[in-house]
Amino acid sequence: MDSLETDVVVVGAGLAGLSAARALAAQGRSVAVLEARDRVGGRTVNEPIGDGKIVELGGQWVGPGQDRILGLISELGLETFPTFGDGLNLIERRGKVRDYRGTIPKLNPVALAEVGMALKKIDRLAAKVDPERPWASEHAHLDRITFDTWMRRNVRTAAARDLMRLAIQAVWAAEPEDISMLHMLFYVSSAGSLDLLLDAEGGAQDSRVTGGTQLISNRMADQLGDSIYLEAPVRRILWSGDRVFVLADGIQATAAHVVVAIPPALAGRISYEPPLPPARDGLTQRMIQGSVIKTMSIYPEPFWRSAGYSGQATSADGPISVVFDNSPPDGSPGVLLAFFEGKAARDAAGLTRGERGQIVADCLARLFGERAARPDNYVEKVWAADEWTRGCYGGYLPPGAWTSHGHALSEAIGPIHWAGAETATHWAGYMEGAIQSGRRAATEILSAGNEGTR
Amino acid sequence: MDSLETDVVVVGAGLAGLSAARALAAQGRSVAVLEARDRVGGRTVNEPIGDGKIVELGGQWVGPGQDRILGLISELGLETFPTFGDGLNLIERRGKVRDYRGTIPKLNPVALAEVGMALKKIDRLAAKVDPERPWASEHAHLDRITFDTWMRRNVRTAAARDLMRLAIQAVWAAEPEDISMLHMLFYVSSAGSLDLLLDAEGGAQDSRVTGGTQLISNRMADQLGDSIYLEAPVRRILWSGDRVFVLADGIQATAAHVVVAIPPALAGRISYEPPLPPARDGLTQRMIQGSVIKTMSIYPEPFWRSAGYSGQATSADGPISVVFDNSPPDGSPGVLLAFFEGKAARDAAGLTRGERGQIVADCLARLFGERAARPDNYVEKVWAADEWTRGCYGGYLPPGAWTSHGHALSEAIGPIHWAGAETATHWAGYMEGAIQSGRRAATEILSAGNEGTR
Repeated sequence: MDSLETDVVVVGAGLAGLSAARALAAQGRSVAVLEARDRVGGRTVNEPIGDGKIVELGGQWVGPGQDRILGLISELGLETFPTFGDGLNLIERRGKVRDYRGTIPKLNPVALAEVGMALKKIDRLAAKVDPERPWASEHAHLDRITFDTWMRRNVRTAAARDLMRLAIQAVWAAEPEDISMLHMLFYVSSAGSLDLLLDAEGGAQDSRVTGGTQLISNRMADQLGDSIYLEAPVRRILWSGDRVFVLADGIQATAAHVVVAIPPALAGRISYEPPLPPARDGLTQRMIQGSVIKTMSIYPEPFWRSAGYSGQATSADGPISVVFDNSPPDGSPGVLLAFFEGKAARDAAGLTRGERGQIVADCLARLFGERAARPDNYVEKVWAADEWTRGCYGGYLPPGAWTSHGHALSEAIGPIHWAGAETATHWAGYMEGAIQSGRRAATEILSAGNEGTR
Repeated sequence: MDSLETDVVVVGAGLAGLSAARALAAQGRSVAVLEARDRVGGRTVNEPIGDGKIVELGGQWVGPGQDRILGLISELGLETFPTFGDGLNLIERRGKVRDYRGTIPKLNPVALAEVGMALKKIDRLAAKVDPERPWASEHAHLDRITFDTWMRRNVRTAAARDLMRLAIQAVWAAEPEDISMLHMLFYVSSAGSLDLLLDAEGGAQDSRVTGGTQLISNRMADQLGDSIYLEAPVRRILWSGDRVFVLADGIQATAAHVVVAIPPALAGRISYEPPLPPARDGLTQRMIQGSVIKTMSIYPEPFWRSAGYSGQATSADGPISVVFDNSPPDGSPGVLLAFFEGKAARDAAGLTRGERGQIVADCLARLFGERAARPDNYVEKVWAADEWTRGCYGGYLPPGAWTSHGHALSEAIGPIHWAGAETATHWAGYMEGAIQSGRRAATEILSAGNEGTR
């Protein structure tokens, strides 16, 4: 058992934890980052696919307005490139595949009008939800209903409901009945509009990072040097007065503060002494990790491009709900990214890798023709099976939780500070939010005054 | 670190765990019961109040149809006595206190008719929900809405909604917006009817156990002798082939099977190796412990009895929602049991014991007069603050969870079996259900054939 003493212990070496550590180190604080995995990056991870190329099995997109992550990418000497979107997009519904351009697919005009009106209503409601205090908003009563209930009241046609369901799956990796309407509004409010969340060009899926988003964490970790401890899952946090003791496998650390930068669902599995107050513990009981399986089918070249397709597709028939061209910047090899989301991901989690690969091949063939059914390679990540994530894209709250326990999401408890994309108020759930949350936790500690503990 | 080898390890010495251990021991299996607390009984606990008398700070009532617990009480040489109910009950709403007899309080006739119709509708819906497989019922789509949404569609008057809310608080220690309508139907179906859950005489609150319900666990534990290990919280469960290793503070045990007999929310905090499959882990992320603070105000005698009151009261004005005469069988001392439930419990959890005592005194005085504001003694238990329970009465599921993850609630995984009142299909959430679940887990193990491990 190694022992160490430091100003601040950070639990989790994802973007939030590393951002916190970096902000603290920049102000002269000593830090130790304890990470359960054998790598940094959390929910961002690069997977080599040969020839020095990689695919990203986790978070990968950035977009305008996400100033922290864009600034960090540039500061670390990394570059972005636009998500491939030239050509026709596809939508599949009731066995038919149609092509279209932009974010909103071709459907009957009534359905499209309904979707447009629903998006506007949601944006109008979200504009009045302060992401710092959703429970105090004039729309807080919408925490009593699921998004599904709201949708059934506000969207009548089956086609429009199918599109809305796809939007929920794409953004939250959950089903409309899983999510509190107030949670949805919080999330939209933190980003600006639902369109922004859904859009590729100009939205949350606008651009990608050359070399893969895990490089962001890798480079931050390089700067932090030997302050990072891998394969050190934290099991217990004990505190008393102004000292906190953090026990991980193989390491025990003493500090003045700890930043817990992992999703609330996992933070609740650490044992705390004294036990956390009911509000915080109850929050961790209520925040659920989304359900997504990210798959990549790899071909010698992006054959759909020459046929005039962007590689972007969405299917209401499933089980694959969303597809993107995810080829490297030079277009070689060709990569189709396909998501199982929500119910589809839960069902597919019980299958074998081979069975999932076959499902993906079948879905891609329906969209892009038989050629798509024969990739050279198939890689995937079942995020709910990953012990140190237990679901992606992130945590969401069911009805009743924001209004009863929301205040405990990021309120520090003694020397324990909370970070992670779930605790963000700007682009909550995104890489941008993760960075914001880590820096906010660092600011809490720095503004607590000179610790004088070493 | 003590090491032990046994046929079966049981995690948790509540009614479920002890029932499992007892059923296994009766068939000649060796067992070791690892309990985190310094006592057995789980969510049942006796608190001495002097003169050899006790009050129960946890589960305390039994009723007709609960054959397992009634049989066990008798088998262990214990006795029951009727819940005190002679005299007038009280209901407070909008600052007015009215008296009534029976379960349904005096309100305006429209409201009463609405409540009666709603109860009938709920019972009719519940009758078609198989508690073994709620997700497969023809009403499974009701998992998409909260009980609050159902109520707003089916109950129009404010008075009737207030009564329904009180019913939800009383049975689930939650608010109508917290609970999936399908969960409510599952729970009602497992008991038989909503009336049964709400009723004192003839229902779930019919009778009490002389000496307190913790005696049931104490006597089972006596029979199990040195198989019980207290202050041994289980941290990790590792399994491989037909061996399972259970690591608790100070003890490591090897066995052929383990029965995890704690609420799902807590079972999810144990570290498993290999990690649990997504469906089971996701279930533990979704099952939320209710919010209740049980308080007891103690007086020299039950002064309300001589004034013609039963001591049973309910208040829509709160924060105390339900009151019972909880005096010992001989009526000395006089005890008024008062619950904070749902939102009221969450709010009050952030107060001091003294502040809560004052709130209880104020509420009881409004109901029973000034005399009630001056108890000799006040005892309470904030169940959400208890690290080894984290909320009572039990776990409930929000919308979307039963249909997506319900099957994982009690399905064994390798040598790991699940018990606890949440996994019961007869009186789920009650002491009866806890016993049923423990015996069911034992049966799973016994029917797996001769282990021959020792």
